[in-house]
Amino acid sequence: MNEFDLIRRLQGIISASDAGLSQTGSVGMGDDAAVVTVDAGRQLVITVDTMVAGVHFPIDTPAADIACKALAVNLSDLAAMGADPRWFFLALTLPQADERWLEEFATGLATLAAASGIELAGGDTTSGPLSITITALGVVNRGEALLRSTAHAGDLVVVSGTPGLAAAGLMQWRAGEAVDSQAWRAFTRPQPRLQLGRALHGKATACIDVSDGLAADLGHVTRASKVGAEIWLDRLPRPGVLGKLPLEQCWNLQLGGGDDYELCFSLPPQLEREVPALAAQGGVGLTVIGRLIKGSGLKFLGRDGREFVPDRSGFDHFPGGGHGSEAPV
Amino acid sequence: MNEFDLIRRLQGIISASDAGLSQTGSVGMGDDAAVVTVDAGRQLVITVDTMVAGVHFPIDTPAADIACKALAVNLSDLAAMGADPRWFFLALTLPQADERWLEEFATGLATLAAASGIELAGGDTTSGPLSITITALGVVNRGEALLRSTAHAGDLVVVSGTPGLAAAGLMQWRAGEAVDSQAWRAFTRPQPRLQLGRALHGKATACIDVSDGLAADLGHVTRASKVGAEIWLDRLPRPGVLGKLPLEQCWNLQLGGGDDYELCFSLPPQLEREVPALAAQGGVGLTVIGRLIKGSGLKFLGRDGREFVPDRSGFDHFPGGGHGSEAPV
Repeated sequence: MNEFDLIRRLQGIISASDAGLSQTGSVGMGDDAAVVTVDAGRQLVITVDTMVAGVHFPIDTPAADIACKALAVNLSDLAAMGADPRWFFLALTLPQADERWLEEFATGLATLAAASGIELAGGDTTSGPLSITITALGVVNRGEALLRSTAHAGDLVVVSGTPGLAAAGLMQWRAGEAVDSQAWRAFTRPQPRLQLGRALHGKATACIDVSDGLAADLGHVTRASKVGAEIWLDRLPRPGVLGKLPLEQCWNLQLGGGDDYELCFSLPPQLEREVPALAAQGGVGLTVIGRLIKGSGLKFLGRDGREFVPDRSGFDHFPGGGHGSEAPV
Repeated sequence: MNEFDLIRRLQGIISASDAGLSQTGSVGMGDDAAVVTVDAGRQLVITVDTMVAGVHFPIDTPAADIACKALAVNLSDLAAMGADPRWFFLALTLPQADERWLEEFATGLATLAAASGIELAGGDTTSGPLSITITALGVVNRGEALLRSTAHAGDLVVVSGTPGLAAAGLMQWRAGEAVDSQAWRAFTRPQPRLQLGRALHGKATACIDVSDGLAADLGHVTRASKVGAEIWLDRLPRPGVLGKLPLEQCWNLQLGGGDDYELCFSLPPQLEREVPALAAQGGVGLTVIGRLIKGSGLKFLGRDGREFVPDRSGFDHFPGGGHGSEAPV
């Protein structure tokens, strides 16, 4: 079986859903480009992310984990915009054709795609150092996308899941320690919060996904919305491995660690009582962790209301990392 | 100036047209994803291509050439579908930040983007081995995309420009010979035939861009349309460097060389007299090179109607190469 047979097989596994495109009068794979039809009154939401071996994941990461994360980081951006996933395009660069690797990759991709309601509509496979670029398209009703720039002073700051859990897993792995399975799963198989994004329509005033770390991503919201924020660190959930860490180390991971792919959003204070219902609709725990204030900048308050200054290193982009902003940053 | 300042500068140069997105109520860079509005009655046409250093271009290729070609190969796919270019997304993986390189890259990209009427709407920049993935979106009126699968036996086969010119330039460069400037320009700065693609609406029965070589790409059309083809090799234009080569070597380059990014399309025979007008509208020379016939397969006829069998190597994908099909092939 040569390289081209292998790639056809990959295509066979991941293009099983291609029939859906044809049914709607659209054209999927096999022409110069894909043609897709968008409902009237809907807008397209488009995001692109690249993952490079050795930069975004260890070179020996299981292929299914690579595939799932490459798709999940894009789905997370769609979730943060409140968009319904529709189509994705895969640009896969591979050093060599390895049948088992390709099958695992394709199976992982197909599983998450099916679970998320997104269809592979095209792509490109090239030879070269392992990297994966996925472009994902979703739709929202016109004018209903959840933006970063529309939060108000007085709004509550809410976050889903457990910020810092993925970073704790990565930290243990880097240190050669036994890795907490829950933390490793958070790092390798982040769950895009698509249901939550949908539930936030008409509720959240702004939303972002936490990819670069809570502090950096919340900073994107406050700058875009021209507000400040105070964050009550004691509110952050610290289950499992996080609860065992010294408090300041834990907070540094939670604020600067990144790779969470949770949603952080602002909510008018009168909607605070709806948080449990939103959590139920979103299928993920939600925590009110602070509020937006007039002015600018982020203030982190630890125990006794004392200000906590996070380790600056958590604020810097890991070179090559970062899947937050739909811009070459 | 650190890496992030450099990348912001790149962003500044290539996002100059971002204002256009805002004017239409859409959201460009700076959120989790871009939001774009599609006109009612229009369909989206989407294509993705990756170019990897050392695979698709020599590592020391000028940055502006890399940028132009990375965008051009995508624009060529849109042209082959008869689509109007609208937005593109850039995923750029760079080994290190080199200010001069980035400026040249951004300037090259901005120039072709402006000339083609396409706007940068988002992207992702990561560190790693140099590679560029561009996702380009265009629009067509619903049901009017030029497909591969809709040609008929009896249609004429028409090609734009000079197939084989880019391959001749690459051949000379690989051999360490003095490179013909016209051929090198064809290889490094292919011109996406967007005007021609638009002119073909309602005329061409099928269309493809010639990226993998005329024989391979015409084969995609004949297989998709369930027809055969006979090609009259003597009709192929052989200007400049091509005219100086032995005839069989020239034909092998023209049939198998690839990287032409010309359009090859089928035209009902009663429209043959419109070819000069289509060439004028398309801004490129057009040549009728054969016709589609009942059956299957491609037959190449040389002088005296004798069959010419191209060198098989021209039919194989260069590993990692190929920008033709919107599928991982």
